[in-house]
Amino acid sequence: MTFGPASGVPKPRAHGRTNILDKGLGLAALDDLLAVAAPFVDLAKIGWGTSLVLPDLDRRLDVYRSHDVDVCCGGTLFEYAYAIGEVDEYRAWLREHGFDHVEISNGTIDIDTEQKLAAIEQFAADFTVFSEVGSKDADAIVSPARWVRSIQQELGAGASSVILEGRESGTAGMYRKSGEMRTGLIDEVLEAGIDPHQLVFEAPLKQHQVYLIRLIGADVNLANIAPEEAVPLETLRRGLRSDTLAMFHAGVSAD
Amino acid sequence: MTFGPASGVPKPRAHGRTNILDKGLGLAALDDLLAVAAPFVDLAKIGWGTSLVLPDLDRRLDVYRSHDVDVCCGGTLFEYAYAIGEVDEYRAWLREHGFDHVEISNGTIDIDTEQKLAAIEQFAADFTVFSEVGSKDADAIVSPARWVRSIQQELGAGASSVILEGRESGTAGMYRKSGEMRTGLIDEVLEAGIDPHQLVFEAPLKQHQVYLIRLIGADVNLANIAPEEAVPLETLRRGLRSDTLAMFHAGVSAD
Amino acid sequence: MTFGPASGVPKPRAHGRTNILDKGLGLAALDDLLAVAAPFVDLAKIGWGTSLVLPDLDRRLDVYRSHDVDVCCGGTLFEYAYAIGEVDEYRAWLREHGFDHVEISNGTIDIDTEQKLAAIEQFAADFTVFSEVGSKDADAIVSPARWVRSIQQELGAGASSVILEGRESGTAGMYRKSGEMRTGLIDEVLEAGIDPHQLVFEAPLKQHQVYLIRLIGADVNLANIAPEEAVPLETLRRGLRSDTLAMFHAGVSAD
Repeated sequence: MTFGPASGVPKPRAHGRTNILDKGLGLAALDDLLAVAAPFVDLAKIGWGTSLVLPDLDRRLDVYRSHDVDVCCGGTLFEYAYAIGEVDEYRAWLREHGFDHVEISNGTIDIDTEQKLAAIEQFAADFTVFSEVGSKDADAIVSPARWVRSIQQELGAGASSVILEGRESGTAGMYRKSGEMRTGLIDEVLEAGIDPHQLVFEAPLKQHQVYLIRLIGADVNLANIAPEEAVPLETLRRGLRSDTLAMFHAGVSAD
Repeated sequence: MTFGPASGVPKPRAHGRTNILDKGLGLAALDDLLAVAAPFVDLAKIGWGTSLVLPDLDRRLDVYRSHDVDVCCGGTLFEYAYAIGEVDEYRAWLREHGFDHVEISNGTIDIDTEQKLAAIEQFAADFTVFSEVGSKDADAIVSPARWVRSIQQELGAGASSVILEGRESGTAGMYRKSGEMRTGLIDEVLEAGIDPHQLVFEAPLKQHQVYLIRLIGADVNLANIAPEEAVPLETLRRGLRSDTLAMFHAGVSAD
Repeated sequence: MTFGPASGVPKPRAHGRTNILDKGLGLAALDDLLAVAAPFVDLAKIGWGTSLVLPDLDRRLDVYRSHDVDVCCGGTLFEYAYAIGEVDEYRAWLREHGFDHVEISNGTIDIDTEQKLAAIEQFAADFTVFSEVGSKDADAIVSPARWVRSIQQELGAGASSVILEGRESGTAGMYRKSGEMRTGLIDEVLEAGIDPHQLVFEAPLKQHQVYLIRLIGADVNLANIAPEEAVPLETLRRGLRSDTLAMFHAGVSAD
């Protein structure tokens, strides 16, 4: 009898990474969920400035580490530190709490390209840096050419990968206000020769996850996944849900 | 003083069944939720092929059994087994894990009517069979006449009840892509003389639950209920929420 | 090093209250969530008539009290009691379970203004009364003038504050069916000279929370917050999320 679990790709994974968005789960709930989902979760982002509100930050980080899940703070926390003139203090605070990763973005406030690249370079000396491109303002439509240039510049400055903005809702950055994906934008980014494995796509909604898995493959890097959607996403990656069944299993012809 | 809890219908129930959709809850969370909701939950479906991904399948089944909740796998798991040519192995795997129920569908892949009916008949020898009609493809609109014929044929082949497709989102099968219910379809199914108690309606969204309770009654069978919506659904069934208050309590006139 | 948690306003709070909507969480999950979120949660409403369905009502109330969170039942439970002619029995039942707060509404059934005001007055002798204005029927559009008059009358009758209807979905009462906020209605209520701190806005969706914080301030009272959204809402109140960062931190100019 051969029917049974298909084996997935073990951690640590260079590609096919799933990053969840933690906006303040209870700690027991987190531990309980990771007992099921940790094999499929590479990193948790504690969304925006939530880390400054949580009464249990250090214990939360311990829970993630006990399940071999990396953690970083949202890019908005960097922007907040930048806005109040405390970038050095932010770096010290990250070290104090034992963070190895940091997200550098300018999705909310105006930060000059040179200053953003300088920040990426400085943080890259001590941290794995994820930089993020795209605005959180649903009305701001940035041209594909500018996305491409920013991605190339930020990888050049030392970002280990670049995140494409999608917010928690999938209605800004690489998505239109309506939730429709800016597929032309993604095509231009890929056609510019950027390695998709150096990109992380914020894709909170299932239809966007399906689209990106079909476009790039099961090993696409996806972020802003709601914690309870990590297991469903894994089933999409393995062709165990309707939307990707035909893609992964030869001989299956979709309706 | 008479004000207080209205008593519900005790389990096991032939009608008015509530089936939840489990897509990988933490086990402690599941046990905790069922401590509240188990009296209102008849069956849990472990969605699509999730059972092959979960690291804790047997313990999960134990949790359900300890709360007197039946369990079955999603129809997509049958379709996966069919697609890879392992239907017999699937049946053995179900027995090995102690499943008493199975869902037989063809919502994703093409399975001939005769082959689907044969599968229902074969599984019905050892399992309680739920068959499912309707496509998971939001763009596939199957005619009411074909729904009626399929339902009648599948009940004839030994299905204990027939599930009307709605997916997790309520945007395919008995719903349009927009989420609008295909009310004409449901009317035709009922007018064809099919006993609504032999049907299970996938109705993940509250407005659809309300519609079906108003149309068929508090004892309509509803499925794909998010686990945290089992208690709210029970309040709808008992007339304890705005949407059904006027329906169940004489003398109440809605605004 | 100054970078770190910004201190919030400690409980008990007269303004800036966050009321969550409990529709039947597991008790361990509730306790676990409040271990994180209780500093930001003032009151929990056990939605509509859910209190009559829960098998664990008294233990649930104990969990809330152990975290210094007030509790009340939904206004629909009052309307149910009114409809079946058991208002006195409802009051006794509330006392028996140790409730200190009650919600008096007429969003579902027709209750004469005089009778509603009389009920508010009677309950106010023994309870902190929240009255609610606005219909739960998404098709019922009540004029701003009638909202203003009702609010003034109900505060006059002894309501400690008045809740503006929004339902769990944000698609009725102060919202259009589409989810769009009736901003003209809110403007008229505020222009009539009603103190916004005597109002509680049901605002389950983030965009509505953002709108109201921008309009009224971080200390606006917000209700029908999903339990897992209490922490994210606190980050909005403190300017630690993109949508309100520019509002709270001088020198930050939004994109």
